[in-house]
Amino acid sequence: MKLASRHLLELEGMSREDLSLILDTAKSFREVLDRPIKKVPPLQGKTIVNLFFETSTRTRISFELAERRLSADVVSFSQAGSSVSKGETLKDTARNIEAMKIDMVVIRHASAGAPHFLCRVVDANVINAGDGAHEHPTQGLLDMLTLRERHGTLEGLRVCIVGDILHSRVARSNIHGLKTMGAKVSVCGPAPLIPREIEKMGVDVYHRLEDVIPQVDALNVLRIQLERQKSGLFPSLREYHRYFGVTREKTEKAERPLTIMHPGPINRDVELSADLADSEHSVILEQVTNGVAVRMAILYLLGTAGSGVPAPEKGI
Amino acid sequence: MKLASRHLLELEGMSREDLSLILDTAKSFREVLDRPIKKVPPLQGKTIVNLFFETSTRTRISFELAERRLSADVVSFSQAGSSVSKGETLKDTARNIEAMKIDMVVIRHASAGAPHFLCRVVDANVINAGDGAHEHPTQGLLDMLTLRERHGTLEGLRVCIVGDILHSRVARSNIHGLKTMGAKVSVCGPAPLIPREIEKMGVDVYHRLEDVIPQVDALNVLRIQLERQKSGLFPSLREYHRYFGVTREKTEKAERPLTIMHPGPINRDVELSADLADSEHSVILEQVTNGVAVRMAILYLLGTAGSGVPAPEKGI
Amino acid sequence: MKLASRHLLELEGMSREDLSLILDTAKSFREVLDRPIKKVPPLQGKTIVNLFFETSTRTRISFELAERRLSADVVSFSQAGSSVSKGETLKDTARNIEAMKIDMVVIRHASAGAPHFLCRVVDANVINAGDGAHEHPTQGLLDMLTLRERHGTLEGLRVCIVGDILHSRVARSNIHGLKTMGAKVSVCGPAPLIPREIEKMGVDVYHRLEDVIPQVDALNVLRIQLERQKSGLFPSLREYHRYFGVTREKTEKAERPLTIMHPGPINRDVELSADLADSEHSVILEQVTNGVAVRMAILYLLGTAGSGVPAPEKGI
Repeated sequence: MKLASRHLLELEGMSREDLSLILDTAKSFREVLDRPIKKVPPLQGKTIVNLFFETSTRTRISFELAERRLSADVVSFSQAGSSVSKGETLKDTARNIEAMKIDMVVIRHASAGAPHFLCRVVDANVINAGDGAHEHPTQGLLDMLTLRERHGTLEGLRVCIVGDILHSRVARSNIHGLKTMGAKVSVCGPAPLIPREIEKMGVDVYHRLEDVIPQVDALNVLRIQLERQKSGLFPSLREYHRYFGVTREKTEKAERPLTIMHPGPINRDVELSADLADSEHSVILEQVTNGVAVRMAILYLLGTAGSGVPAPEKGI
Repeated sequence: MKLASRHLLELEGMSREDLSLILDTAKSFREVLDRPIKKVPPLQGKTIVNLFFETSTRTRISFELAERRLSADVVSFSQAGSSVSKGETLKDTARNIEAMKIDMVVIRHASAGAPHFLCRVVDANVINAGDGAHEHPTQGLLDMLTLRERHGTLEGLRVCIVGDILHSRVARSNIHGLKTMGAKVSVCGPAPLIPREIEKMGVDVYHRLEDVIPQVDALNVLRIQLERQKSGLFPSLREYHRYFGVTREKTEKAERPLTIMHPGPINRDVELSADLADSEHSVILEQVTNGVAVRMAILYLLGTAGSGVPAPEKGI
Repeated sequence: MKLASRHLLELEGMSREDLSLILDTAKSFREVLDRPIKKVPPLQGKTIVNLFFETSTRTRISFELAERRLSADVVSFSQAGSSVSKGETLKDTARNIEAMKIDMVVIRHASAGAPHFLCRVVDANVINAGDGAHEHPTQGLLDMLTLRERHGTLEGLRVCIVGDILHSRVARSNIHGLKTMGAKVSVCGPAPLIPREIEKMGVDVYHRLEDVIPQVDALNVLRIQLERQKSGLFPSLREYHRYFGVTREKTEKAERPLTIMHPGPINRDVELSADLADSEHSVILEQVTNGVAVRMAILYLLGTAGSGVPAPEKGI
């Protein structure tokens, strides 16, 4: 079995079959992670370059672990901001990668579309680790895996994404992936932080947590980017917490136990109360584990496509 | 044979048996380091994360070499100062590590007790690579190994630690480890830089190098932190060198050849004269080699405890 | 077969036999790079430290890839500028490397001669990755490999190096290596940027591209260091481009198709026009691929000298 594309650029437009294949493969790798020896051989001799033009300790470490546990050779390059991130230079960087005979590239970039650009100019498999406000597909996939593990299925599952939807690549990847898998997706946040066209994506919009909480099975609480406070789109932190901060008090109005998700790192007691983050409703640490498993699945599926290497469930 | 604890947090309270086991194992690895191929397989498939919240090129490289030579997979994360180093965030960092299924964590942190905190919240083995002014146990162990190699035994050996004892985690680890092994430990430094309670640790206090040099077999000369000059506790560098700088002239008053140690990097001709650092009395480079061997021993003993992997002396 | 020296410090004085051995070995590794699995075992268990005292993303990544593809263990240390780069500290760094039982050291340093200094104080093999304005031997070798692949032989080949010859370690390595292999080398640039003694090296000097272009087979276009603008030696960028910028218009005066080389990264439309950089005359990306192959060859030849490991062409 192989994916339709040689790259992972976005969840938008990805088929139900491909999403299921990734989630099923990730489930197998999730089991590998519970073994004493977590290393498997499928990418032995392959070279992966991690190009992080935006800093991200967690996502970078999660990818590096996934890569090393698949026995790949890893070279990492981090450069926040600046000239390297722009136009012509990304093209030159890409061509150099190509020339160095790299097999796979993981790229995080402040500009939406940078991974798409990259895959047009290199032969390597390209994996989007977050591009501007566009998508963060491995985050979407790990959220979906976590929900599927907790609730058994995504079909018919009711999920609300809470926070700054406008600037969130996590929201966008979740919406596309969850909708394709048959979930019912809503968003909740301050009006200026909800994109206008979002209802066309088949998403319900709420502006009060109290209204949506009784309607859903899970809340995916986005991290507030504190630096956006200055943008004018944003209420004060205090006000934000009062209306959109997810607290135990507010979630008690749920009809059934709510699953609480967060992509991390949490601003405790801003978008999510500390006690709820650490409660039995929270699957936040499951998300972190599933992040490694999902990244192993993607790297495995793209890196071994058609090579006849057995799938991990068949006895690595 | 295995250690009493799953972690290496401090030498204080560690038994003579455990200290001997580490030193004996390190001695085996010291031999591995003289082979053409210095790599051995015991940590294959294990993942180690190096969390350096304080910068340290030497200690980090020494640990990385030890880890790779045991065939572990290594992910390193350096972040000096700042928010990550504090309270709640360290907790979140710890939980993320846990969730990523890391086997071992090496941590250096500006706060005393950070490794203890970490080992209460994660399953991984935790190794203290220096925490505030508390302890630097692998440094203590490598100093002990170096002294034992040079003098045959630590029992009855007379060692004086020279310098800023008050702020030194190296001093603290040396005192605890050496005392347990039966050495006779003294300290020498300016009065404001000697902790008040230190005599209760069974340590003799000197304020003049001339007085202690005829009494000892080895001097462990601490690095002067030049930035502490501003604290007011400190004499000028010139005055410090005059009274506490270890020079050939002063050491000629020794009754027998003195062993000279220094944890590096040396401020040449401040706390230690350049000619003495490079002399036949100096074991400073032996300390560096032994640092890799001691770290391999610790990683090996903690990482394979009870797993039935043979000890290195039995034919890796 | 082995090289005369245990180190790669410079191409000056290297024999034709040694240069040929490196280029032939690199050619074998060039083929390895086209295989699906690019990893070979000869440096398994060897430890290489990359000491980059000057920042260089490309050269560092090229070396790291070469090292990992030879199965070496790699520890990297980057520190631009500052105290570490100077005198005594480099000596201490070197001794620490030695004491940690490192097998090979790759060093880039702002001071000419730093690698020579290093190889006098350590047992490890030392590889110069660029030292001040002195030499950048692996760049010289990859340029030579690229020219030999394109033109079949270096004997009698006419190569002109264009730009700031005075400050260029790339120019110096190219001149020495190419002359030894029988090529005819010339340089072209503004008078203040041509070293006075250069004709004694058997190199023709031109001050007008128009004059040299009809006389040569290849142009090796150096990168303009934009920060040198302030030195007073330099014309304005506009003027530089007008007289020394290599453009399609100027190269149309060539008698036969000119090969265009550049060590990268290119200042497009300053020293080299963008269309020419991307044209069929350009071998710039071949240079990047050959860079990995040449570095594998050097590491292989130095790291396995006399150890009986078969050469890569004999079936790794």
